[in-house]
Amino acid sequence: MNLPKSLQNVVDSFASLPGIGPKTAQRLAFYMLRMPGDDVNRFASSLSDLKSKTQICESCFNVGEDALCEVCGDSSRNQSIICVVESPLDVLAIERSSYKGTYHVLHGVINPIAGIGPDEIFVNQLFDRIAKMDSGNPVSEIILATNTTLEGESTAMYIYKEIRGRFGNSIAISRIGKGLPIGADIEYADEGTLSGALAGRVIL
Amino acid sequence: MNLPKSLQNVVDSFASLPGIGPKTAQRLAFYMLRMPGDDVNRFASSLSDLKSKTQICESCFNVGEDALCEVCGDSSRNQSIICVVESPLDVLAIERSSYKGTYHVLHGVINPIAGIGPDEIFVNQLFDRIAKMDSGNPVSEIILATNTTLEGESTAMYIYKEIRGRFGNSIAISRIGKGLPIGADIEYADEGTLSGALAGRVIL
Repeated sequence: MNLPKSLQNVVDSFASLPGIGPKTAQRLAFYMLRMPGDDVNRFASSLSDLKSKTQICESCFNVGEDALCEVCGDSSRNQSIICVVESPLDVLAIERSSYKGTYHVLHGVINPIAGIGPDEIFVNQLFDRIAKMDSGNPVSEIILATNTTLEGESTAMYIYKEIRGRFGNSIAISRIGKGLPIGADIEYADEGTLSGALAGRVIL
Repeated sequence: MNLPKSLQNVVDSFASLPGIGPKTAQRLAFYMLRMPGDDVNRFASSLSDLKSKTQICESCFNVGEDALCEVCGDSSRNQSIICVVESPLDVLAIERSSYKGTYHVLHGVINPIAGIGPDEIFVNQLFDRIAKMDSGNPVSEIILATNTTLEGESTAMYIYKEIRGRFGNSIAISRIGKGLPIGADIEYADEGTLSGALAGRVIL
């Protein structure tokens, strides 16, 4: 017995998403079969609108609805500070803190093993943006907030060297602080985290 | 900063599904943003079609595309054997075995704690089906294949008693075999499984 075609299509659609295997896809499709028709249609139209109604910000490359995203278009934000992150989801996370500067979204990290070099991510666009701002409202600080993974660290290091090489020492460049996450137990913290936590200790 | 409305709608849609929390919903929505537009639209239209192009089989209550599902409409299947299951997903699982009879999908189990009685699932429809078949092609066997959970067992027992009460001893009623799953280690099997495996032992 085969699934009805229209049900199989939904199963296949779900299964094409990351982290959703064939079993989960089946369960979700059958669940939707029991959802009110209006909810299913709302889901369908939200997907239809997704691509047509969003765009990449021409300044920071975050996802927005206009040519400039909400942050870049907001004059109350400190436009001279740029926080460099790997993905739009990192922006969301940092927005939950009290950060009031702007962002630059790389949409990836440099990862030679996966064949991803500087040209595959939006890093040159960052240098262009800094150069353009130099004549007018110059950048005061670049905060490198890539992940604390091997690739995140080497990408941060690459950007640091390039900025120093291109713009000299006029711009402050910082790396997000490393240490113990809130609620962590020192006993179970790894060596790297503890080294970072000790190096980043704050005098009281 | 808020997410663009059209993106937030997709996040909300995903988060309304079971087992998908707000974080996963965000990740899926951002993933879809990078998917080719055609794939996203195919997903959207598969959802639009889901409700309009499927229907519940009027005989066995499985999900199909016509008034009778693929199994009920297939004359090569043994229409006198009915396998009673909890959900359409159970039908899919049993179809992967060599079963050649038909099904009856209850769409739930009797669960007094959750307020689900016999009238909330398609159990009376099973009795009606048996009664109707009595004049013509009578049922030879009912296989009770509800889950081996507390609710599944008591639903099976309820159906057994009702059929005996209504139709006497003319119909064979069986319960799916219980025992060790394939690949299991006796050392780690629970008491109930072992009791079932011993009771269900097969003489060689």
